[in-house]
Amino acid sequence: MMRDAVIFYSQFDDPVAWRRALQVEVPDLAFRAHPDIGDPQAVRYALTWKPPAGFFAAFPNLALVVNLGAGVDSLVARDDLPDVPISRLQDDGMVSLMTSYVLFSVLRYARDIPALERAQRRGEWHYIHPRPLSAIKVGVLGLGELGAAAAAALAHTGLDVTGWARTQKVIAGVRCMAGPDALDEVLGENEIVVILLPLTPETHGLIGARELALTRPGAKLINAARGAVIDEAALIAALGAGHIAEATLDAFNVEPLPPAHPFWGMENVLITPHLASITVPEQAARDVAKSIRRVRLGQAPLHAVDARRGY
Amino acid sequence: MMRDAVIFYSQFDDPVAWRRALQVEVPDLAFRAHPDIGDPQAVRYALTWKPPAGFFAAFPNLALVVNLGAGVDSLVARDDLPDVPISRLQDDGMVSLMTSYVLFSVLRYARDIPALERAQRRGEWHYIHPRPLSAIKVGVLGLGELGAAAAAALAHTGLDVTGWARTQKVIAGVRCMAGPDALDEVLGENEIVVILLPLTPETHGLIGARELALTRPGAKLINAARGAVIDEAALIAALGAGHIAEATLDAFNVEPLPPAHPFWGMENVLITPHLASITVPEQAARDVAKSIRRVRLGQAPLHAVDARRGY
Repeated sequence: MMRDAVIFYSQFDDPVAWRRALQVEVPDLAFRAHPDIGDPQAVRYALTWKPPAGFFAAFPNLALVVNLGAGVDSLVARDDLPDVPISRLQDDGMVSLMTSYVLFSVLRYARDIPALERAQRRGEWHYIHPRPLSAIKVGVLGLGELGAAAAAALAHTGLDVTGWARTQKVIAGVRCMAGPDALDEVLGENEIVVILLPLTPETHGLIGARELALTRPGAKLINAARGAVIDEAALIAALGAGHIAEATLDAFNVEPLPPAHPFWGMENVLITPHLASITVPEQAARDVAKSIRRVRLGQAPLHAVDARRGY
Repeated sequence: MMRDAVIFYSQFDDPVAWRRALQVEVPDLAFRAHPDIGDPQAVRYALTWKPPAGFFAAFPNLALVVNLGAGVDSLVARDDLPDVPISRLQDDGMVSLMTSYVLFSVLRYARDIPALERAQRRGEWHYIHPRPLSAIKVGVLGLGELGAAAAAALAHTGLDVTGWARTQKVIAGVRCMAGPDALDEVLGENEIVVILLPLTPETHGLIGARELALTRPGAKLINAARGAVIDEAALIAALGAGHIAEATLDAFNVEPLPPAHPFWGMENVLITPHLASITVPEQAARDVAKSIRRVRLGQAPLHAVDARRGY
């Protein structure tokens, strides 16, 4: 019997690491890194991040598409998706990285670091009496795998954490709210707001001028999700007016962020180049292997995506 | 019977918050904030941070000195200490704040933030592929109440954590080592080194030129303990040479850090004005009240300090 093959495509992820990690898990699987696709008939699985338009059409026997990341918005928005199960990556390494990014960026504000950095540039010993962490209110928008873990970790440090999602969740130590009215409340009551929402038609532009105006004066905003969840022009205005005091942004409407973009010139914005979280092949390959084994047996893959719902 | 009184002295801590917090815990205790000392005969307890020389001699009936902080080095070094039990503060608020400071400063390095900030100042989208947290080795020197909590929290994020103390400790998720030879090993094997040692005659200048030379090229150093644990001149040389790539410093030989100090001009040093952790009266007052009640009954206070050992 011909060995079945997986086709790999990504401009960010390392094919060598993925080949090695998958060979450990599924030794009888052939690994093809684009453009060395081998026999297209043998390719039954696609492991891809933003492949070019028409990519999937080359593989008539495709039985599974695995998205190389947690956010499937760019995948489900395509009009060339084959009619096969779609699965997204879920791995502990990705969760740990996102949690570490959120902990870093929230604690940076909770511990008044931007003000201290500005004082340091002036050569000034500027003591700021620390507030107890329990007096600092943090809202986390989006309580999927990444958001739930980040919210729990923030609560574990002693911060006062409220989470918000479309549907009601239960997370130890976190006050969880759901629905549109609750969103307004969460925006209005928290000093630090963290966005970890999936990008879907419902969340596209969800944080606009109206929502930014609802936040507390001097609020700090952290976006580790997708740029399009926020209305960038509205955010630029709110930052310029000082209503939003600080922002940490990992995702943007256009990436790389264009050289002339106003964010570059804003001293109260920390820009990170979309690296809050990435897939760690050694850990993620276990789940991908399980999905491949399940599809070989005619079963549904793990972490199936509902292409209509968008996540 | 005359009400017994506590005398409060600190240039940093808030007497109003302490008065309120202690009144909740020990309603029949009189609270005197220096210089309103009232009847010195009534003062049986001192709650102080760096009171002036000769301070204690004014109170002939003193039965307890509580140090308003975790580090008792400046207290036990005095030659005017009364011969009464000495107790140091231990409170969850202080532990949470220190843990939050250490999490922030370690994750800042683990997530390559200084390099991203420099790129941002150049207006450059500089992607740095994140390493899994488990591949980043962190050493924590000092495993007292603060060090142990910080080491455990770092391990909880997924970082690879080794702890070192004078005596052997056991902390879940942390490889614990003890003794002088192990110190050299911990310095040599960890990319990020966090100092949370008490200042004692043994730790004074413990991290000198020899110890800094033992660290990995490009190591990052975080000092949230006392300035004098590090030989500052040696650290300045190691930072200048780039052997130590980055430092986060909360404590210095002279505080406030003098305007002409070389640290101010170093782009690879983050200076915070000794605020990594402070006492939170509402939480700490419970322990202080317990110690006062114990001393009233002729018992030893909580968290007694061995003045000879120094902690």
